[in-house]
Amino acid sequence: HDTKKFLSSAFVMASPSGRRAFKLALLQLRVGADKADNVARALDMIRAAASAGADLICLPEVFNSPYGNQHFPAYAESVPDGPTCDSLATVAKETKVHLIGGSLPERSADGSRLYNTCVCYEPTGQVACIYRKCHLFDIDVPGKIQFKESDTISAGDRLQVWQTPFAKIGLGICYDIRFPRMAARLAELGCDLLVYPGAFNTTTGPAHWELLVRATALQNQLFTAVCSPASDPASGGYVAHGHSMAADPWGSVLADCGPDEGRVIVDIDPARCDSVRQQIPLLKQQRPGLYGGSV
Amino acid sequence: HDTKKFLSSAFVMASPSGRRAFKLALLQLRVGADKADNVARALDMIRAAASAGADLICLPEVFNSPYGNQHFPAYAESVPDGPTCDSLATVAKETKVHLIGGSLPERSADGSRLYNTCVCYEPTGQVACIYRKCHLFDIDVPGKIQFKESDTISAGDRLQVWQTPFAKIGLGICYDIRFPRMAARLAELGCDLLVYPGAFNTTTGPAHWELLVRATALQNQLFTAVCSPASDPASGGYVAHGHSMAADPWGSVLADCGPDEGRVIVDIDPARCDSVRQQIPLLKQQRPGLYGGSV
Repeated sequence: HDTKKFLSSAFVMASPSGRRAFKLALLQLRVGADKADNVARALDMIRAAASAGADLICLPEVFNSPYGNQHFPAYAESVPDGPTCDSLATVAKETKVHLIGGSLPERSADGSRLYNTCVCYEPTGQVACIYRKCHLFDIDVPGKIQFKESDTISAGDRLQVWQTPFAKIGLGICYDIRFPRMAARLAELGCDLLVYPGAFNTTTGPAHWELLVRATALQNQLFTAVCSPASDPASGGYVAHGHSMAADPWGSVLADCGPDEGRVIVDIDPARCDSVRQQIPLLKQQRPGLYGGSV
Repeated sequence: HDTKKFLSSAFVMASPSGRRAFKLALLQLRVGADKADNVARALDMIRAAASAGADLICLPEVFNSPYGNQHFPAYAESVPDGPTCDSLATVAKETKVHLIGGSLPERSADGSRLYNTCVCYEPTGQVACIYRKCHLFDIDVPGKIQFKESDTISAGDRLQVWQTPFAKIGLGICYDIRFPRMAARLAELGCDLLVYPGAFNTTTGPAHWELLVRATALQNQLFTAVCSPASDPASGGYVAHGHSMAADPWGSVLADCGPDEGRVIVDIDPARCDSVRQQIPLLKQQRPGLYGGSV
């Protein structure tokens, strides 16, 4: 297919393969202790981004709750029929946007487990898909950051791809971005864009966040975006890195939100994936027989 | 095992697993049209790096020939019994170093094929192992850089790991670094260090070189080094990026040679791989069942 050809016609909103240029908004919400306030301010930011022309809007990881094992059980809700999800469905329908609902602590139907869960909405307000974080954040960097998400959260057991009218989107959450084989699998499934709501911290953020975003984009020759809560050293709890950002298939940073509450809106044209893949045809040049064979 | 413990003993030069701290020298040779001069200057740089205490020394990709399809057939030699290899064997024995001979254009025994080949030497002068570039540099970035290495070079068909007394080393050449599954396989085979003699150019070098080195190191939690010819815009031919560099398992750059002829010597302690892997246990946290399964 020739996406560029279709884009040159004003009458064709989407190519037959469901790809066209679009605007992605990353909303870097400051997340506090008041759940209702977090959600209300998230809705305000969604409305503003929609007014600014965003087609696809993303919220941060755990956007309705402080990030911490002591908070997840108290803030957890049913998905997709809890109050936070109801608000997201309503605002998606109201603003007619495609919405990646960051993530929230989910309590399983039988109440026995919690997940770190991303719910996506169609512009109709209908649930498009649900992704549960598959790689949990269990790290121990002495004197810097120790966290064991698996103390309270259970891991998801499947990847999730969302076919929208403008792009095929692969979903991940935060620590998932450290696993190149997950991104490679999403690329293999045809994704044009990977989106990771995420909350890196003040140790791994400066060291690894941008590096992983750019590398994921370059190695897989697709757009990669991450959406963090604002960095809030005054919170007294886990301090997120901020710096919501996106990189293009050449590995270049398109926008960086900085540390504070705010948003970035980036223009994404999935045809750029094709052009980079034509220039540097990595997918065709792979040698899978070498990667698991004997040496 | 506790490598640090062993290192604290002055009487133990290597841990039982063949790991200890060592010095790696990356020699950023300026490569010209005169093969004998290229080799002679490479030998001088090897002697100087050995005198400076290097245990392991690496030369650039295609260090005895200008980089170009018009040059490879004319500069190609038998491996490992051609004159360039003879010189490398002799200098390795003379200086008592472990030597990664960058790469050179190899003519196959029956004369029918060329390879881009890396030959490694023990301090005895004996050949330790031979690696032939597996992913050939065929790219076409309009108006910037077009190259089709496969016009003259055939691809190798096996990976190569070198167990030295101080580290297990995985070998790659240049474009190989764009293939994360190759690096992941070398990591899975127990490598502490990946070394890629390489000659990125003035388009992909500034955009991708450091990003790929740091990402390879971080994603696989091992040391990663690249060794380029000097950048020589006056050469009239292919202009290499230079910037021979190394990154540690945390993804931090340890040294960067800049564009001009020169060298860097970096201290590498394989125990650092263990400590990063303990802090962020990616290998244990992988979910292989998700990476090729159904969605």
